[in-house]
Amino acid sequence: MKSFMDNNFLLSTQTAQKLYHDYASKMPVIDYHCHINPKEIAEDRHFDNITQVWLGGDHYKWRFMRSCGVDESYITGNASDKEKFMKWAECLGKAIGNPLYHWSHLELQRYFGYHGSLSAKTAEEVWEICNNKLAEPGMSARNLIKQSNVKLICTTDDPVDSLEWHKMIAEDESFDVQVLPAWRPDKAMNIEKADYADYINKLSEISKVSINTFSDLKKALFVRMDFFATMGCSVSDHGLEFLMYVPASDKEIEDIFTKRLAGTTISRDEELKFKTAFMLYMGSEYTKRDWVMQLHYGCKRDNNQKMFRSIGVDTGFDCINNYSPSAQTADFLNAMNDNGGLPRTILYSLNPNDNQTIGTIIGCFQDSSAVAKIQQGSAWWFNDNKTGMQDQMISLANLGNLSGFVGMLTDSRSFLSYTRHEYFRRILCELIGNWVENGEYPQDYDILGEIVEDISYNNAVNYFKFNL
Amino acid sequence: MKSFMDNNFLLSTQTAQKLYHDYASKMPVIDYHCHINPKEIAEDRHFDNITQVWLGGDHYKWRFMRSCGVDESYITGNASDKEKFMKWAECLGKAIGNPLYHWSHLELQRYFGYHGSLSAKTAEEVWEICNNKLAEPGMSARNLIKQSNVKLICTTDDPVDSLEWHKMIAEDESFDVQVLPAWRPDKAMNIEKADYADYINKLSEISKVSINTFSDLKKALFVRMDFFATMGCSVSDHGLEFLMYVPASDKEIEDIFTKRLAGTTISRDEELKFKTAFMLYMGSEYTKRDWVMQLHYGCKRDNNQKMFRSIGVDTGFDCINNYSPSAQTADFLNAMNDNGGLPRTILYSLNPNDNQTIGTIIGCFQDSSAVAKIQQGSAWWFNDNKTGMQDQMISLANLGNLSGFVGMLTDSRSFLSYTRHEYFRRILCELIGNWVENGEYPQDYDILGEIVEDISYNNAVNYFKFNL
Amino acid sequence: MKSFMDNNFLLSTQTAQKLYHDYASKMPVIDYHCHINPKEIAEDRHFDNITQVWLGGDHYKWRFMRSCGVDESYITGNASDKEKFMKWAECLGKAIGNPLYHWSHLELQRYFGYHGSLSAKTAEEVWEICNNKLAEPGMSARNLIKQSNVKLICTTDDPVDSLEWHKMIAEDESFDVQVLPAWRPDKAMNIEKADYADYINKLSEISKVSINTFSDLKKALFVRMDFFATMGCSVSDHGLEFLMYVPASDKEIEDIFTKRLAGTTISRDEELKFKTAFMLYMGSEYTKRDWVMQLHYGCKRDNNQKMFRSIGVDTGFDCINNYSPSAQTADFLNAMNDNGGLPRTILYSLNPNDNQTIGTIIGCFQDSSAVAKIQQGSAWWFNDNKTGMQDQMISLANLGNLSGFVGMLTDSRSFLSYTRHEYFRRILCELIGNWVENGEYPQDYDILGEIVEDISYNNAVNYFKFNL
Repeated sequence: MKSFMDNNFLLSTQTAQKLYHDYASKMPVIDYHCHINPKEIAEDRHFDNITQVWLGGDHYKWRFMRSCGVDESYITGNASDKEKFMKWAECLGKAIGNPLYHWSHLELQRYFGYHGSLSAKTAEEVWEICNNKLAEPGMSARNLIKQSNVKLICTTDDPVDSLEWHKMIAEDESFDVQVLPAWRPDKAMNIEKADYADYINKLSEISKVSINTFSDLKKALFVRMDFFATMGCSVSDHGLEFLMYVPASDKEIEDIFTKRLAGTTISRDEELKFKTAFMLYMGSEYTKRDWVMQLHYGCKRDNNQKMFRSIGVDTGFDCINNYSPSAQTADFLNAMNDNGGLPRTILYSLNPNDNQTIGTIIGCFQDSSAVAKIQQGSAWWFNDNKTGMQDQMISLANLGNLSGFVGMLTDSRSFLSYTRHEYFRRILCELIGNWVENGEYPQDYDILGEIVEDISYNNAVNYFKFNL
Repeated sequence: MKSFMDNNFLLSTQTAQKLYHDYASKMPVIDYHCHINPKEIAEDRHFDNITQVWLGGDHYKWRFMRSCGVDESYITGNASDKEKFMKWAECLGKAIGNPLYHWSHLELQRYFGYHGSLSAKTAEEVWEICNNKLAEPGMSARNLIKQSNVKLICTTDDPVDSLEWHKMIAEDESFDVQVLPAWRPDKAMNIEKADYADYINKLSEISKVSINTFSDLKKALFVRMDFFATMGCSVSDHGLEFLMYVPASDKEIEDIFTKRLAGTTISRDEELKFKTAFMLYMGSEYTKRDWVMQLHYGCKRDNNQKMFRSIGVDTGFDCINNYSPSAQTADFLNAMNDNGGLPRTILYSLNPNDNQTIGTIIGCFQDSSAVAKIQQGSAWWFNDNKTGMQDQMISLANLGNLSGFVGMLTDSRSFLSYTRHEYFRRILCELIGNWVENGEYPQDYDILGEIVEDISYNNAVNYFKFNL
Repeated sequence: MKSFMDNNFLLSTQTAQKLYHDYASKMPVIDYHCHINPKEIAEDRHFDNITQVWLGGDHYKWRFMRSCGVDESYITGNASDKEKFMKWAECLGKAIGNPLYHWSHLELQRYFGYHGSLSAKTAEEVWEICNNKLAEPGMSARNLIKQSNVKLICTTDDPVDSLEWHKMIAEDESFDVQVLPAWRPDKAMNIEKADYADYINKLSEISKVSINTFSDLKKALFVRMDFFATMGCSVSDHGLEFLMYVPASDKEIEDIFTKRLAGTTISRDEELKFKTAFMLYMGSEYTKRDWVMQLHYGCKRDNNQKMFRSIGVDTGFDCINNYSPSAQTADFLNAMNDNGGLPRTILYSLNPNDNQTIGTIIGCFQDSSAVAKIQQGSAWWFNDNKTGMQDQMISLANLGNLSGFVGMLTDSRSFLSYTRHEYFRRILCELIGNWVENGEYPQDYDILGEIVEDISYNNAVNYFKFNL
């Protein structure tokens, strides 16, 4: 029997242990997709207590607490930070099989030096340990990043964002981790939303392009992409319901756009046509600019309208959207491929049933412009757990080139979540270790070590063409 | 190598063995959803031979025999009970990897003391053993229930049912297991069926409510729910093609209902609107009455029309319906949540691909009115096997609160199937045992034992608020 | 730790090893579905070098090379055979977790006696070994087949095919392996295709039936089926987007057919109606002729139109089509069952998410006319890997009669791919071995050996009624 989360956590074979300790663990971290607030890095935020770090904005934890029957006052409500922590500890103590259990204990081990298990019994002790530790200077946002061996971070930013915090960080010579913006133009695409015209106005203002037509919109986005590029941006990101392909003529698209700006409601078909055209334009620009395109899809958001009215977006009420017709996905990528070229692209679906479908689709669009040019992204959000990551990597390996995989990202709002790279690397090494120990691949550490180091770090550097 | 189905069947680690033998196996059984005929309990049915118990109505076994190429005469036809058993034994002998193999041998072990393996070779011997055993008084319906340590059973009952057998059982002081009705109003919802008007007439008669409008229908159902409540009912159950959400105005619903009662065919869209309205009403009533709502979906029934014409429903010709749009499911639960409150709800899909989708949907509607208020039901019907149960529990643990899971039910027509609770508990303990032995969760038997006992029994008692 | 791909490759338990070495490995091979070119057998083709054998037409390998960023010139382009091989070796060296790794090394071991691992490092050595070996007379197409212990091969043939090569092989007494045609009338069904009328003309010519109506088409196909039957054909095969069921009257079908022959475009609905009618006719003929019907579906082809324009079909640009409504699949089989009887049928979906759905559908149409009359085909194409085969067999076992499974086929264009039967049998024996060693099934080699031999060989002989 293995001890609880010890040095060989998740590493059951000697091969896995060697691969992890001698190769994976030594590599730095590239966090090419996250939701960190750059202001907190610029200001080098300190935290008063563990509740602020852990429970301030983490909807994963909120969901779990609700599943335990905890009252909302202890989650997003008025209870004190300590009360919230005590409730959380009680819930976590019984979170067997849930990734929160491992994520939280990895964080307790790596950042707070606590190697016990958090539950109602130990809550008081852990509260003290963490808060004392957080009072140390090494626990500021920047220091947490540095001690996590992070070399580069991509945040997630709207085209209208001023990127002022990124600028401040870049200009501050005392902090040498790159914090780059990533381009996420969802609001410019979501033409069906009630506040679309307002957003277009904002974009018009900041880009200084008067927007009356779809061509104007493209011009405004072009201007902002230029600006993002000056700030080091080379990665884009999109949140889509599904990867749709509903082609239409330029004229149709212009008509839909004009109609919508005039305040008229558009049909579902018009919406999909517009979004298709929008994405085709974006893709062609990314190709020209040599940017990477990330596509996140398969999510249905804000399902609990009662809670939405009360506490708004990103509060733990999202679910998998299981409508994602592979025919449209393939046609969409094909159209991009014909329309000025498909950029290097990463597909993430929230639905794990899409693993194999994605694996076969990406295989249709690979070419010699990059190793594993079209990627399946690491197990995303609800799938970011041991079995989810195993399944994603097994599927990817079965259907394509695992050795070219760009690997892990945190997708997180927290400065403690870099341990998820560790979690991922352990799972990767365990998977490969099992293959080797089972005689399915030679025990050649020259190649194995290279594969593990590449997936941990080098592939991301090369794929995104970061300047490190 | 482990011996065949011994005391540590499915328990490969010491932790799993301890959890099963010291905790799980000692807990009583709550069978909160089954298709037992209460008449057979009321009359304390005895069985002449093992064919009556095993092959009288078990469409799982019938399907398997057909897959082996057995002639229908030996399945539902005129062959003698012994001939049927001999054919069954021959088939079972080769049923490697099929849950019937384990279910049957657990039943042979626990109820008949037979620890060999049933096949063509041993069929004659087993026939004798079982039939001799069945002649003993301890093998009556009631005694089988009692020796299985069952505390409470919920049957599945139509609103027009008189519940006379439940009454008789409740009044019989010599039998202290609770046998409660569960409310299953499918026939009142299935407006598209040819015999809908006939059913409505029956409901009208028994409820003494004249039914001309949808409002009348609701009144009639209300009256019957009152009656079911007096008989101890606090659980409902629905069989739905999928969890649809097609909202409509009250007027539209009334029009659809009137039209249908007048004998007119309705459109698919009208059907879905009606069913949506029906379910919204039901849900709001369950909330008021503090009943649990079970939703079974993803099944397409009676696919072999040739056999349906010959031997009718529930004879082994059903399959997975893989259309279940998660967007509608989420919207349906949200609408209930806004419409008088969502009751405690259990979702069961016949499609195992829905595991993760369900896991993320239920997470959107949890609140402090119950621990794990919205549940994913135990692996259902075709999924009620080792891998199906593992997958359901791993998914549930990854996405929510496994420790709050209400656990197993038999969904069965047989008095021998309580061993499926044992099967489930062994699989549960093996899963948890592996996590612990792999260092993924501490070996703390205070918590582990509690989790296992809760999932085996306590959670169901608390969740359904049974009076035990 | 096990050595790399040794004698007990994939066999981790003693039971698995015994089952494989004493039972499975001794059975001959029936390759009841492949894409071998019969001309190459008739002419007993020899190969100049390993690139010809391995990379000449293998789109699996091409896809993988593209995923590694290899330029198309080294894949389907003008690079020399040796250059292509060197690039392939480099890619394969890092193909960890991909079935190509095992397939290729099994071929290197069994046909070339090479037991090392192929990578950039060993490429030169392997190039020499393979090419020297290929110069031996034992490495001709026929000798490869014979040394692989193959007893019978079914190719895949269009109704207009002359079957001249099959005739030549059959008449050649020096070669006693049966090479039978299989009937694949996709072109006669695909009414939406631009060249449909041309195809109908060809069919008219060769069948000597003037085709103006759907009835005429059926007559022409009837004539060709008669001819195929004289050549030993008893197996059909269909490639379908999904298993649709859109019934229509005879008149409607005739109108659609006439319209299309006249050059008019038809609607999607008309297409599906026509295909439904086409399949119903085919099925009824297969039943009369006692042919087996294979249904392959869930594929979307030629997704990369840029590459399609450049190098055409079957070049590695296909993906899973995830639209396959189970309701239509079930209704389609039911309609056949009512329409003159459902023939023995094998369902293959490219989407592994369909495993359980298929498992439940086939269970609805089993009867005593054959053991496991309706089969789920072995893990197909993208799923033909270790986890894909495990998942298919576990699902089949859970839901039906694994012991009646007709087992493996190569689906291949290569004379080296018979080792995939070995791969399959090892995975089968490992699966069964684990069940036995885990106490889930008795260690009775009489039954276990029989099951393994049946799935390896006997079931296919009996199911297809081959004359061996």
